[in-house]
Amino acid sequence: MSQPTRPDTSDPVWKLPAVPDDEGNYRIPFEDLRGLVVKLLTTVDVPPEDAAIVAESLVLADARGMNSHGVLRLPVYLKRLREGGFKPTSAFDVVSETPGTALIDGGSGLGSVLTKRAMDLAIEKARTNGIGAVGIRNSNHNGEGAFYVQQAVAKDMIGIATTNGSPIMPVWGGKTPLTGPLPISIGVPTARHRPIVLDAALGMSSRGKILYYAEKGMELPDGWLVDAEGRPTRDPNWVRNGGWILPVGGHKGWGLILACEILSGILTGGAFGAELTNLYDDLDTPQRNGHFVIALNIAAFTDVASFKQRMDDYIDIMKASELAPGFEQIFMPGEIEFLKKERQIAEGILLGRKVLDEVIATAKELGVEIDAAS
Amino acid sequence: MSQPTRPDTSDPVWKLPAVPDDEGNYRIPFEDLRGLVVKLLTTVDVPPEDAAIVAESLVLADARGMNSHGVLRLPVYLKRLREGGFKPTSAFDVVSETPGTALIDGGSGLGSVLTKRAMDLAIEKARTNGIGAVGIRNSNHNGEGAFYVQQAVAKDMIGIATTNGSPIMPVWGGKTPLTGPLPISIGVPTARHRPIVLDAALGMSSRGKILYYAEKGMELPDGWLVDAEGRPTRDPNWVRNGGWILPVGGHKGWGLILACEILSGILTGGAFGAELTNLYDDLDTPQRNGHFVIALNIAAFTDVASFKQRMDDYIDIMKASELAPGFEQIFMPGEIEFLKKERQIAEGILLGRKVLDEVIATAKELGVEIDAAS
Repeated sequence: MSQPTRPDTSDPVWKLPAVPDDEGNYRIPFEDLRGLVVKLLTTVDVPPEDAAIVAESLVLADARGMNSHGVLRLPVYLKRLREGGFKPTSAFDVVSETPGTALIDGGSGLGSVLTKRAMDLAIEKARTNGIGAVGIRNSNHNGEGAFYVQQAVAKDMIGIATTNGSPIMPVWGGKTPLTGPLPISIGVPTARHRPIVLDAALGMSSRGKILYYAEKGMELPDGWLVDAEGRPTRDPNWVRNGGWILPVGGHKGWGLILACEILSGILTGGAFGAELTNLYDDLDTPQRNGHFVIALNIAAFTDVASFKQRMDDYIDIMKASELAPGFEQIFMPGEIEFLKKERQIAEGILLGRKVLDEVIATAKELGVEIDAAS
Repeated sequence: MSQPTRPDTSDPVWKLPAVPDDEGNYRIPFEDLRGLVVKLLTTVDVPPEDAAIVAESLVLADARGMNSHGVLRLPVYLKRLREGGFKPTSAFDVVSETPGTALIDGGSGLGSVLTKRAMDLAIEKARTNGIGAVGIRNSNHNGEGAFYVQQAVAKDMIGIATTNGSPIMPVWGGKTPLTGPLPISIGVPTARHRPIVLDAALGMSSRGKILYYAEKGMELPDGWLVDAEGRPTRDPNWVRNGGWILPVGGHKGWGLILACEILSGILTGGAFGAELTNLYDDLDTPQRNGHFVIALNIAAFTDVASFKQRMDDYIDIMKASELAPGFEQIFMPGEIEFLKKERQIAEGILLGRKVLDEVIATAKELGVEIDAAS
């Protein structure tokens, strides 16, 4: 999974093997989908090695079933790259540095490229210092935090990542949008079991899940959503009519969100709160996201093999719990996504028809004809 | 607030000024209450400087209105100190160390003493390395995480602290108690505003709040509690009948709790999950709690004064939000506790009558007569 298998050909038509399923969606081999993403990004002047990072981030998110962080985002990435909201070449200017920390200015480059490099730097620092922390400012949308914490896991470290984002949620007690259900991602290596990869947006639910309730005509549980005035509601339709999703545990989750905003936006000297631009608005204007990553070297604390064995032992104990009603199995954070990823890498990545259609239309604007055929 | 003003007198009766209020509780001057806690701890062989740390931790928790972490805990601390579950002298053995990290074995000493020293060490490391992280194993109950993160705040750093605890909550999907609503504490310095001090147990509510619903005969909101079989319930009485409080945001909060357990229990090579002993059980047996603290040096990233100004600017923006229904003001995390602390340090600390009675009875067992009079 290091480089696309498909060469950058001058063939005027790009062939994409895409098998339609019964519901009108497509299953596309991982390498083919990744190769297409690289092709399109390089067409708008992203250097091939950076394009490979973004492609892997997007396609792996789809593989993991996290489609909201997947290729769905490619068309707007391409538009922003053309219109100036994303710079094709990602600067990585070190603003300040100590043995255990660094602050990076991303020069409005690509969020995935910048965050991957930041985590590489944090890992490097953690090798000698036990822990490394890197903040990034003047970045953009960076996809799924799980992608970066797994870099640390691969080096026998614990990875932590967060980011800020454009405002869609008020602070606790307010109704002026000033932040979002920001994510905390944490990855932990194990031995025999799959790694623990928590990637939790700090909202009580996701927009997608609430739209599903709306579609099915079901009422929401208490505490998930408020209406446009900030009044508690069980009507899922408010999610698209000016209501907002509540933070996990009310004021507690909001406090954690504020900490994510402080690390990503305030400590980095970057943009915070309402200064950030939405991915889909003002495509010629950088979003100004900030990110923050930490790598914690297990070897600085204890023997790595013992640590992994202890993780496995605890996972065995947890999985042997007596089950609560409605559960058939105990899954660790990230386990379901690992299972999906393994299956989809073997069988092909499921992509919605609307997503593929939009990718094809955007490619055409860039002069790339895609022949999506089985 | 560095040393108790009251000398360790040999007067056979310890005079405690305590003014009863209308509800039968007492208001006790901060220094007098702290002096008493030091007196009682030194009576069971805790060195005076360690006793001062524990006393400050407990009495400040009461001052902040967090009585569940306050002097309420002193009687069981004293019993454990007599019976061997807490060692009066807190070892601080460095098991492993790198420039940015350390692992400490606490030798079953006092949680507050060990965690305070660990945060001091993390701060020291963050001075030169930008970030410092210290894990502690073989510790005991350590009170309120807010106490430790404020050490970092006082040094212009961001402090983060967590701990594990004896099992009262199952993992997500199970019903075997294996963990608890573990806390994440985060402190951030500001300029003109009070510091941000988040101290959030990762449960949807607290036991105390749910008992209040029970007392008032009110139903709980969805998603707070399950019954002894793990079925969702709105009946608050299940909190004392084998039910358990759900984590914030369901599986998300549980994932964060698991991360706290991994840092505190697994990475430290200490006890985890069901290996920990409850504070009130087996008083001769160490609890084996683990803790984990991080200090992040703001100066490693940016100019401290600018950071604090930016924090103030963001707090001003947040506080100027249009208010949601039911809110009269926007409070930052920890702000209400700062207001309470300021008032109670001026007016005296409110202590429940039952708490004071138990302290007096326990003191008597130690040969200390307390004369609590106004």
